Amino acid sequence: MSSPISEVEITSGRVTIADPSTPFPLASGAVLEHAELAYEAYGRLNEDRSNAILLFHALSGSQHAAGFTSEVDGAGDRWTEDCQYGWWDLFIGPGKVLDTHQYFILCVNYLGGCYGSTGPTTLDPQTGRPHGARFPAITTADVVHSQARLLDHFGIRQLHAVVGPSVGGLMAINFATLYPDRVRIVIPIASGHKTTVLARLTLFEQVLAIENDPHFQGGDYYDDTPPEYGLALARMISHKTFVHLDAIERRARKDVVASTDQLAWYQIRNNVESYMLHQGKKFVKRFDANTYLRIIDMWLNFDPLRDAGVATYEELFAISKAADHHYLVFSIDSDFCFYPEEQADLVACLKAADVSAMHITVHSDKGHDSFLLEPELYAPHLYYTLAGRWNKTRVNGPAVPLVE
Amino acid sequence: MSSPISEVEITSGRVTIADPSTPFPLASGAVLEHAELAYEAYGRLNEDRSNAILLFHALSGSQHAAGFTSEVDGAGDRWTEDCQYGWWDLFIGPGKVLDTHQYFILCVNYLGGCYGSTGPTTLDPQTGRPHGARFPAITTADVVHSQARLLDHFGIRQLHAVVGPSVGGLMAINFATLYPDRVRIVIPIASGHKTTVLARLTLFEQVLAIENDPHFQGGDYYDDTPPEYGLALARMISHKTFVHLDAIERRARKDVVASTDQLAWYQIRNNVESYMLHQGKKFVKRFDANTYLRIIDMWLNFDPLRDAGVATYEELFAISKAADHHYLVFSIDSDFCFYPEEQADLVACLKAADVSAMHITVHSDKGHDSFLLEPELYAPHLYYTLAGRWNKTRVNGPAVPLVE
Repeated sequence: MSSPISEVEITSGRVTIADPSTPFPLASGAVLEHAELAYEAYGRLNEDRSNAILLFHALSGSQHAAGFTSEVDGAGDRWTEDCQYGWWDLFIGPGKVLDTHQYFILCVNYLGGCYGSTGPTTLDPQTGRPHGARFPAITTADVVHSQARLLDHFGIRQLHAVVGPSVGGLMAINFATLYPDRVRIVIPIASGHKTTVLARLTLFEQVLAIENDPHFQGGDYYDDTPPEYGLALARMISHKTFVHLDAIERRARKDVVASTDQLAWYQIRNNVESYMLHQGKKFVKRFDANTYLRIIDMWLNFDPLRDAGVATYEELFAISKAADHHYLVFSIDSDFCFYPEEQADLVACLKAADVSAMHITVHSDKGHDSFLLEPELYAPHLYYTLAGRWNKTRVNGPAVPLVE
Repeated sequence: MSSPISEVEITSGRVTIADPSTPFPLASGAVLEHAELAYEAYGRLNEDRSNAILLFHALSGSQHAAGFTSEVDGAGDRWTEDCQYGWWDLFIGPGKVLDTHQYFILCVNYLGGCYGSTGPTTLDPQTGRPHGARFPAITTADVVHSQARLLDHFGIRQLHAVVGPSVGGLMAINFATLYPDRVRIVIPIASGHKTTVLARLTLFEQVLAIENDPHFQGGDYYDDTPPEYGLALARMISHKTFVHLDAIERRARKDVVASTDQLAWYQIRNNVESYMLHQGKKFVKRFDANTYLRIIDMWLNFDPLRDAGVATYEELFAISKAADHHYLVFSIDSDFCFYPEEQADLVACLKAADVSAMHITVHSDKGHDSFLLEPELYAPHLYYTLAGRWNKTRVNGPAVPLVE
């Protein structure tokens, strides 16, 4: 049943979630008359359509969570080698913890994305040109509502679970509190429930890095040079929060990158700097600045209370209590993108609302990125929780399969 | 003797430290044939010239450490209202802890600075135009060597103490190990002894923010619009490390700043963002981007081992041991510009070399900026140490004057 290197079967496609007869209203007031979402799915939907897990990707991730894909319709040149292996391939597949023999796992490129879902790079059917600056702001609730339409398309009334690492965890909370009857288990990994001041500062720096680039031109750069320097700087600002500083130093030492740049005045003298610049430049090849800006904006503007129409976190999670949700919340001790204190706060809010919740801290020297790299730290609890065995009366049962 | 609001007497001026007959060689290999340093002094030099304290300013500080000055020769329009009160006025004056009745306190604008010392904004006598891009890179050792020449000008052979907060603390260490016979007491405050990976990353981001600004033009922007957006972004990136995040949130709440900007796409929705943007824009009025870049570069390139020609910190501090230095090292528990761990490392290195050293951690909710704002946390130990009463045999004596 388990295969160490899985050949997961990928089903992929695009689903129309808005057309002129069923337009899609956004939180901003704008309305999309045409919108598609690009998705990938792994495993098979069972007969009663009860085995689906919806996985929200992280900031700059994509729908391609498992297996190998050499190109993606709608991603164009942005589908670089860095994208070809699924970002959670260590977790998803036959015999892995998100076992494709058992679950139907869906992952969807965010609305506003640049990997096939409708976004700023998509051609506006009215003009035949990319939406660019005219593509509206998106909220995490908009992403959640759009994916609910995609679930309707698949005839999935209730998800077995929503799982979201990092920014995806914000959407997992939105989903659970906007569609309480459509999910049972909620698993935010290395995430939060509000935008902290520190996150706000580093995100706003990234907005400015992009908007200050003269090539940005307000977002209408598709006929011209894109704002590569600004996007690279934005990525560098965020990258340092994803990877533990010791790991950055180790990688920089191994992975000496000869800089081909000439900054006008500054001379790069240190591997850490050339490593970071290399990260920034690699990212520019695979991502669109307008999409990046919308996702950053989405995070800055995250407010699940506003989205659910409540005033406090106690009221918010009363929704989860009424729906009998169970939360599994992971912290990474070395995370300084979403600090462990944030998940502790989230769990305190859940407990104050008497929601069933388990909080697990994994210990890693990899920082925030641990959730991509170390399945062994997450698999046992994911397995038990997905199997419904999170309380004392359910701990006996078949042994947990190990991730190999 | 003590006056709660002191009217400290300021002596100020510029001292020529390089001319064609005595040029000033820089670590980079470049040579300055003309250079002046702008200084301020408080108190009087005693007859045997033994009561001098050299104070190194922080990143974007100036020689104006105490009292009130409405303009400074050479600073031009950059001498804004934000500069007029001395940055350490709470510490320096008659009856204050750096008592001007007792000590002669000197503070000097860094070589490369924009407040009167020779730097990128200074007119090149050969061309009659600002040096701009042609002004060379400076190291912290260059700053120290240039200030040693200024001490020669005053006939000061040995300082009573060097004091340096933040980046100034790096120079205090340079001074003590490059001129061991010229100082007795070394006081780095909220500083370090190496450039950490995190500092390297945030500093490099700032380099890119400035160099990416199209108005930077390699550094030759003086006839044109300066790189204001880039410099403002750089300041915002660093500002978040100076002020405790809770304080940023508190200040942002009180100090609502109506944004007059229109970013092309992003809509500011939060006080924290407008507060930070306001900080960035305020800074642009009072600072020069080329100078900022040189100070950032100086910090990125800080290496007291290279400067002193030794291989290890044990060898470096053996120099201090041989000269019988005493160090007073301050940490701020909430500092995330120079983390408390850094000073603990520094003190461990000092102790390994058997140097007399005292390590004090102050507890503050103000973050790195505490050293500017809370003299009461520093004054008692500063007073005892400057009075030579740091060991057990010297603790008795006149009562410590309180800062009022």
